Amino acid sequence: MRSSLHATLLVSCADGPGIVAALARFVFEQGGNILDSDQHADSRLGVFFTRLTFTLDGFLLARDLIAPSVEALLSPHEPTVEVRFSDETKRGAILVSKTNHCLYDLLLRQEAGELCCEFPLVIANHDTLRGVAEHFGRAFHHVPITKETKAAQEGVIFELLERERIDFVVLARYMQVLTPAFVDRYPNRVINIHHGFLPAFQGAKPYHQAHKRGVKLIGASGHYVTADLDEGPIIAQSVVPVSHSDSIRDMVHKGRDLEKSVLANAVRCHVEDRILVYANKTVVFD
Amino acid sequence: MRSSLHATLLVSCADGPGIVAALARFVFEQGGNILDSDQHADSRLGVFFTRLTFTLDGFLLARDLIAPSVEALLSPHEPTVEVRFSDETKRGAILVSKTNHCLYDLLLRQEAGELCCEFPLVIANHDTLRGVAEHFGRAFHHVPITKETKAAQEGVIFELLERERIDFVVLARYMQVLTPAFVDRYPNRVINIHHGFLPAFQGAKPYHQAHKRGVKLIGASGHYVTADLDEGPIIAQSVVPVSHSDSIRDMVHKGRDLEKSVLANAVRCHVEDRILVYANKTVVFD
Amino acid sequence: MRSSLHATLLVSCADGPGIVAALARFVFEQGGNILDSDQHADSRLGVFFTRLTFTLDGFLLARDLIAPSVEALLSPHEPTVEVRFSDETKRGAILVSKTNHCLYDLLLRQEAGELCCEFPLVIANHDTLRGVAEHFGRAFHHVPITKETKAAQEGVIFELLERERIDFVVLARYMQVLTPAFVDRYPNRVINIHHGFLPAFQGAKPYHQAHKRGVKLIGASGHYVTADLDEGPIIAQSVVPVSHSDSIRDMVHKGRDLEKSVLANAVRCHVEDRILVYANKTVVFD
Amino acid sequence: MRSSLHATLLVSCADGPGIVAALARFVFEQGGNILDSDQHADSRLGVFFTRLTFTLDGFLLARDLIAPSVEALLSPHEPTVEVRFSDETKRGAILVSKTNHCLYDLLLRQEAGELCCEFPLVIANHDTLRGVAEHFGRAFHHVPITKETKAAQEGVIFELLERERIDFVVLARYMQVLTPAFVDRYPNRVINIHHGFLPAFQGAKPYHQAHKRGVKLIGASGHYVTADLDEGPIIAQSVVPVSHSDSIRDMVHKGRDLEKSVLANAVRCHVEDRILVYANKTVVFD
Repeated sequence: MRSSLHATLLVSCADGPGIVAALARFVFEQGGNILDSDQHADSRLGVFFTRLTFTLDGFLLARDLIAPSVEALLSPHEPTVEVRFSDETKRGAILVSKTNHCLYDLLLRQEAGELCCEFPLVIANHDTLRGVAEHFGRAFHHVPITKETKAAQEGVIFELLERERIDFVVLARYMQVLTPAFVDRYPNRVINIHHGFLPAFQGAKPYHQAHKRGVKLIGASGHYVTADLDEGPIIAQSVVPVSHSDSIRDMVHKGRDLEKSVLANAVRCHVEDRILVYANKTVVFD
Repeated sequence: MRSSLHATLLVSCADGPGIVAALARFVFEQGGNILDSDQHADSRLGVFFTRLTFTLDGFLLARDLIAPSVEALLSPHEPTVEVRFSDETKRGAILVSKTNHCLYDLLLRQEAGELCCEFPLVIANHDTLRGVAEHFGRAFHHVPITKETKAAQEGVIFELLERERIDFVVLARYMQVLTPAFVDRYPNRVINIHHGFLPAFQGAKPYHQAHKRGVKLIGASGHYVTADLDEGPIIAQSVVPVSHSDSIRDMVHKGRDLEKSVLANAVRCHVEDRILVYANKTVVFD
Repeated sequence: MRSSLHATLLVSCADGPGIVAALARFVFEQGGNILDSDQHADSRLGVFFTRLTFTLDGFLLARDLIAPSVEALLSPHEPTVEVRFSDETKRGAILVSKTNHCLYDLLLRQEAGELCCEFPLVIANHDTLRGVAEHFGRAFHHVPITKETKAAQEGVIFELLERERIDFVVLARYMQVLTPAFVDRYPNRVINIHHGFLPAFQGAKPYHQAHKRGVKLIGASGHYVTADLDEGPIIAQSVVPVSHSDSIRDMVHKGRDLEKSVLANAVRCHVEDRILVYANKTVVFD
Repeated sequence: MRSSLHATLLVSCADGPGIVAALARFVFEQGGNILDSDQHADSRLGVFFTRLTFTLDGFLLARDLIAPSVEALLSPHEPTVEVRFSDETKRGAILVSKTNHCLYDLLLRQEAGELCCEFPLVIANHDTLRGVAEHFGRAFHHVPITKETKAAQEGVIFELLERERIDFVVLARYMQVLTPAFVDRYPNRVINIHHGFLPAFQGAKPYHQAHKRGVKLIGASGHYVTADLDEGPIIAQSVVPVSHSDSIRDMVHKGRDLEKSVLANAVRCHVEDRILVYANKTVVFD
């Protein structure tokens, strides 16, 4: 059933009675069948969030009229509405540096059907991983970046992203801080993997920090990138046990598995339109 | 919001379009506001399951008319409907033998507000745990059972359960196999904790079996009791790592934590009306 | 075998060849049999750590001569040596406030034989948990503390600890910061449970901090108390997943299980003499 | 330190006093320094197991005399002795069918230095994964197998294994049952990944079995292959939660991550000489 043509509706609005019913009736009256619905209310902020998946076969309303109709329907609640269609696959660019584990992992999962998106484009500030991209038949662009050239080179990246009609960007251990211009251009569309359990161990060399502090777990955090480094909305986190006998090198090895699975999980939630962002936090519907 | 007066509707029926919309409209038109809704479709069996929570303040329909109305509304889908009300707290009996860890755990969680039910009654086939029940101010009944007296003594238990208006029974390491008469009397209302990862290590002494096989994880399974021992629908499971250095005694110690948390989790799902049973499996809505 | 009379030797010293052999020969020549040995070398600091368990039946050397003999044996390595005997059970005091879950958990585990120590004494700055201590037959002392009376009341606590010959102190959600005098008096012998994943969310209300930041895991940390609040050597940590749908109250519920298991684990490691402290970190031998 | 030249000694023998001391003295007198030692006693069977790692720089005894010397030293205990040297890297063959995730995972981890072995050879009963082996520069041999040709084709495999001086074999989702001749030829040297939590769900289609039973966790088990299918000594196991909403396809996706990590973990333990087999179980030293 899930594999048939369907739409996903993401709505945030002021909370109040009747929203679920109004949306359910709207879908039904237009000829859709609800496959999945989930909702969340933040009672302190008075905000309501919902994610609705419904069939498109025989849906009466044209695609481009769905969002405006929902906006009109819920207008007293001042809604923010997004609609996605299951046959419009998202296109992602993967930005990397020299480390290959997250790149392999994303491309393999995508090929295996675990990530329902496309990754036509790999961009790197080193040439190291060209062979990996080419093995999978993806375009690879080497865009080296220094402090001085960053703004200009990001311009090169923007062109590549536009030419390839890229919807979202994955920083797969990219090791470069993006400029505010980049972040503003792709709000809630740049996903980073931080190799630490945020908010602990922000910034550089988190495994060194963790080793020095003597923690018994190390973590990784997948988050949207915002202007404040490592302060963006967290999408997914995970940890793995460590002990006194783990050197920093052991932590790096153990951390790789974490980084791969957490980043893949964050990307999966993003491409399946499961995430709503508010108050610098995420609602992630299962 | 969740703490206000609300109803929970559990429906299984033949799948088809419009069910979600019909239920949402029904709730809205009767003056309720949907707080939570979840659904699942088993596409192979063509069965649809939903759980809907909605406010009761100002609901137009009388409580005892809600289920019949939903049945009428969905009659083409041949629904099974249950309705529960947040001010009608479930009453559970805890059956134990000599081991105290699950009994303490259930009573402490219930007192701490983690399990929204009452446990007015503890029944045991040994007198060992009387002091625990009394410490928490619960009635304790010693009903010893032998092979010969089992049927008769279960009669005594039935009387106690009825006198105390008990809705569900928890076997908290009870160590007795119930008669089919007992199981039939409380279908999907007797919860057992099996100290093994079902379907592995069914029957007696699962830790001994696990130790002999040299497994690297031991598990516990919370399930509804059916006529076939350890074959009932599984509600919750968990595992914990073990190694060659764990003796059977170590496994028993580690297993206790598992048993407590898995049983508490299964009971929590039951008392919050999150479970639908079909095809000897469970749908457990989060 | 493990249950026979045995000694545990804990040694930290400058690293170098032959230490393991020297200790093994020493034990053998004195008539002991090594049951368990573990070691760790911090190659950056050049420090060697070992934990050796050996039988005492027929051991030639008197108990009080073992430590001095080992010190003499390894004197070129400037060792720190501790020896513990399996028939000299450690005596712990539990300090609590109003919350009962960690207190019940520690006393139940100790009664079940999971924690090989005694807990003869419960001290509280509120009278709330008197009934719990008395249910388990433990002495309960209500020692209320205010900012003004803290130093004086800690004096009262010291007297209680000495009168009961207490070896170590467990802060089981005690909610009071100890004075430096207390910490200095019991170095590496006061164990605290912090309800956050250190070093994230130090200080007050960690669940509120976690909720605000929107993390996807919450943690608990068992650590030795030092002069710097929440900065002491970490012994054990664990986490549990949370989501947007978990309120602060839900986090508190989930956190309780974490706090219980992490604190019990830290206490178990301490009473089994598995912990060596150095550089504000712990070596915890399995 | 661990990266310097060292030997690993694995001993099983009848338990008794003085074994640790005898071995420690032996190493020291021959000029070695013990880096790591671990031991385990099965008190029911009266068997003692130990793993000792020591430096080889300046070791007096020739390599080929170490095992005989230890055998002589412990002869009253009827020991089984194995010695491995850190500069003699194990060579493994990977046998696959059509599924690529375990193959990629093993080769990537080996290249990243997480698995200290070589994988010069990939053998497959389909030609599907040739490109993967070649991408990593490994020899790939397509050896198709049918019921009728199995014995003969295993002969071809034996030749390949011998020509490449292969020490151990990894069945990375090979989907073929080996003949007893194969198993006998490589005792405790063929590692398989079973995509189920043994001993539950043995045999074919374990995810289908798990889905049908409605379990709440699925597992994977890495084990040595013996004559009895899925009955060999378990090296590593892990599980991942599933729910009613997971289809068999979802289980297969989730299972892939499990299979990769469990198989890699089992291989790592094998190539680091951490495993001793007895009574169809494993002792796996950390």
